[in-house]
Amino acid sequence: MQEMSGAQALVRTLVDSDVRVCFANPGTSEMHFVAALDVLPQMRGVLCLFEGVATGAADGYGRMVGRPAATLLHLGPGLANGLANLHNARRANTPVVNVVGDHAISHKPLDSLLESDIDALAGTVSSWVRRSASTEALGSDAADAVAAALTCGDAEEAGPSPSRTGTSGSISTLIVPANLSWSAGGRPARPVKIPAPPAPSEQDVRSIASVLRLGEPCVLLLDGQALSEQGLRAASRIESATGARLLSRNWAARQRRGAGVPLVEPLAYRGEEITVQLQDVRHLILCGARAPVTSFAYPDRTSLPTPPDTRVHVLAKDGGADTVLSLEMLADHVAPDTEPVLAPLSLPPLPRGELTVGNWAAVIGALLPQDAVVCDESITAGMTTLHAATAGSPPHDLLGLTGLSIGQGLPSATGAAIACPDRPVICLQADGSAMYTLSALWSHAREHLDITTVILNNSSYAILRAELERVGATADASAQLFDLSRPDLDFVSLANGMGVPATRARTAEELALQFKRALSEPGPHLIEAVLLPHRN
Amino acid sequence: MQEMSGAQALVRTLVDSDVRVCFANPGTSEMHFVAALDVLPQMRGVLCLFEGVATGAADGYGRMVGRPAATLLHLGPGLANGLANLHNARRANTPVVNVVGDHAISHKPLDSLLESDIDALAGTVSSWVRRSASTEALGSDAADAVAAALTCGDAEEAGPSPSRTGTSGSISTLIVPANLSWSAGGRPARPVKIPAPPAPSEQDVRSIASVLRLGEPCVLLLDGQALSEQGLRAASRIESATGARLLSRNWAARQRRGAGVPLVEPLAYRGEEITVQLQDVRHLILCGARAPVTSFAYPDRTSLPTPPDTRVHVLAKDGGADTVLSLEMLADHVAPDTEPVLAPLSLPPLPRGELTVGNWAAVIGALLPQDAVVCDESITAGMTTLHAATAGSPPHDLLGLTGLSIGQGLPSATGAAIACPDRPVICLQADGSAMYTLSALWSHAREHLDITTVILNNSSYAILRAELERVGATADASAQLFDLSRPDLDFVSLANGMGVPATRARTAEELALQFKRALSEPGPHLIEAVLLPHRN
Repeated sequence: MQEMSGAQALVRTLVDSDVRVCFANPGTSEMHFVAALDVLPQMRGVLCLFEGVATGAADGYGRMVGRPAATLLHLGPGLANGLANLHNARRANTPVVNVVGDHAISHKPLDSLLESDIDALAGTVSSWVRRSASTEALGSDAADAVAAALTCGDAEEAGPSPSRTGTSGSISTLIVPANLSWSAGGRPARPVKIPAPPAPSEQDVRSIASVLRLGEPCVLLLDGQALSEQGLRAASRIESATGARLLSRNWAARQRRGAGVPLVEPLAYRGEEITVQLQDVRHLILCGARAPVTSFAYPDRTSLPTPPDTRVHVLAKDGGADTVLSLEMLADHVAPDTEPVLAPLSLPPLPRGELTVGNWAAVIGALLPQDAVVCDESITAGMTTLHAATAGSPPHDLLGLTGLSIGQGLPSATGAAIACPDRPVICLQADGSAMYTLSALWSHAREHLDITTVILNNSSYAILRAELERVGATADASAQLFDLSRPDLDFVSLANGMGVPATRARTAEELALQFKRALSEPGPHLIEAVLLPHRN
Repeated sequence: MQEMSGAQALVRTLVDSDVRVCFANPGTSEMHFVAALDVLPQMRGVLCLFEGVATGAADGYGRMVGRPAATLLHLGPGLANGLANLHNARRANTPVVNVVGDHAISHKPLDSLLESDIDALAGTVSSWVRRSASTEALGSDAADAVAAALTCGDAEEAGPSPSRTGTSGSISTLIVPANLSWSAGGRPARPVKIPAPPAPSEQDVRSIASVLRLGEPCVLLLDGQALSEQGLRAASRIESATGARLLSRNWAARQRRGAGVPLVEPLAYRGEEITVQLQDVRHLILCGARAPVTSFAYPDRTSLPTPPDTRVHVLAKDGGADTVLSLEMLADHVAPDTEPVLAPLSLPPLPRGELTVGNWAAVIGALLPQDAVVCDESITAGMTTLHAATAGSPPHDLLGLTGLSIGQGLPSATGAAIACPDRPVICLQADGSAMYTLSALWSHAREHLDITTVILNNSSYAILRAELERVGATADASAQLFDLSRPDLDFVSLANGMGVPATRARTAEELALQFKRALSEPGPHLIEAVLLPHRN
């Protein structure tokens, strides 16, 4: 048998552990990993033109398949470019394995031009970081990276608790000195299997059951696995039998929604609205969710919107016991003979006339295809309308902006489409945030992915304009920092420039026509939806 | 007098210390800084659609004016997006002041969605990092940030040594909790003045002079201030009088070149070529430069291309004594009556026929306008041709890819054009690297900057393809990871989508015509130069 290079052992181990896709933006120090792809065709290399696209794609992929994709990134600056979407992946508990090439060990002390502190950068988003120390160890390092990625590192007190499916994982970063890659003597490690999560404690479940039986106002706050179809069905049984209300995290990593799935009201974005949602609630029961915290602090407002007299209980947390099983056990206690309430198929009427922030979502809701994957970075454009408009659409998965780091939508659609080649992927993308990782469109075209992107063009950083108004600034110097007109972004030209066919819609009718046509054709499409301000 | 907010004191201090431009991509935590711009119009806020554009623009600005611009970045993910170009700025010794908003102090322990380790990220590129501790201190923190940015932190052993002009500075990062910005009680600090560098030691200069008098083969390696017109004139006198050869760092931060300026041969990119350049050299004298180190290590090749029997001497290092003055003192010792040799005006003939990697640079060299600022990220397309083609063009400044982190060109042109509104800015931009920070084009249009961008489209990551061939990979799986066709990027559409008028050139004649036309009109233009492989 011919001796393997370290890079070949690394790729082989990843493949054997079912890591089959690598979103890559490599450079010289990753060249031997790239060369290894020629002898290991089971690993699909997907070229991304920017590292933030690679990491966002790995996030979208991992959310859909529950296993990690690899990324291949070039030294510190390459990793740095990928950090913003790794931040989102971390907040989604998505399993991701980053492979970051570094200089050869003998080269590092020379402080050559690209020398950088990869370890420090990796530490900011990863629950596992290792710098490989030998060619022989590269295989086992890769296996350890995969095992760590399949462990949810988010809950500090829970320790390394394996979890089962979907989005319960974390970020591993393996730093590979170039000479370890190119040297002979690599040894593939044994495949890593996805571990089963620990069983819930019967006592914990009984204790929550007794809270539900008190007859006091209760809310079950759902996130993570609880937002899978199985989790939602159990939660719905509990709701029906006990009167406890269900709420879901806003912009969750992945939520099953639509006809045939129990419907859940999302938590609001702003703290003052959450406080209203939770007023008079006596017990808040966390099911794979964290207690609500506002995204930002504001003068003279609280960051903790849960009313002070609400008691908080934990049924399950991501990285702890199996959330779905916990919900099912709880349902068997308090709702043994109750069926879940499923949303009926109920499409909003197709709106007419000029597109606005208020009506575009109804077009999507009315025409959403069966079993779509919806990547949502519509932000303000969809904040108050998208959930309602799609509540009765055919069943679909909704992937949200988990870490609030913008530029997730187009990349995550890339990964979701590669993960689910038989499902239509819809990317609902705000204009300002599209510009952070726009080159994802090129990967849509290169890989001929069935993604329909709808750009919601309101010509501004609308959410920031609203925040600016909150602080009382009204003059031009500040306002122009959130104005995306002068010049207007022309997303049709931008998409065409990257090989994605594109059209522009100014009316609801045009959007409907173009959306239907895009769905009926294979491959990527982009529709620029020009939104007027909502006139109510 | 009305009491100032912390943010107002911060902006006021920056303005008073002559920091007059802020390249901004702000979010909610920076909202009060933005609002402060309304009452402090002396600070020009320039909106960038991606943080890497903001930091690259600050780098280009700082290289041209020798004073820092500010950047305004949003928490850890925003800073992360800006790190790659801060890496280049660090390698250019450019002064930059980053202002990064963070959550309010009371909000940080709550681990809200955008919580991130800003300090760790900032530490990877900054020589100075501070987290403000009070509203009262924000003004003095800002002054300290400016003072630190005007200090070259690169030379570890040199300590904090102030330097005079141009590109001798470093990266400061001030982290500002939001509540310190919004609270009243800000106190502007006294303005920071640019400090003078320490005088060179007469003894050090005499010792180098005695080396030059030995009559043995000597090379003066020039970087930093040595590449200013004044530094080059002194170096040229030394060359003429002693026979010492001059070499310059390849892809220097800023080099004065062209007719009327002494011409210097650049160091080659590859180590084996540098070894040839330095063979038989007995003494390598570093003038604001570091001893050559290859960019990457390769199997069985050295990373230190200086021949082992070459002795290395240090005349001046950036961050140490005044490099220009050191050269002038040295010239007065060894060449008291010698005049510098200046390059004559000598334009290459305009080439004809299809554009290739080999002939495009001659078009630029033949038509380069007087006193242009040339931002060069042409990489492989210009590596062997650009220097020669522009050696006799009208005098100009050449800004190089100092840290090898691609995506610098378009942003640095933004900053250079804002720094030098009366000079034409030429951006020579490779296709692959253009895609990392392409939205800089929107800022070119928004600010109506006089930038002519030439995209050198060879439809590949050509430098990586060459590296891949060096490792012996030839199969399709690897090769396609460096192929930028399928689909072809259409830079005319991409530029139009961001409001920049654009044309495409396939022949040298077309490039010449379009380049002349672009230079004759105000505002930004883009020319996509489609390059065939060089046929020699």
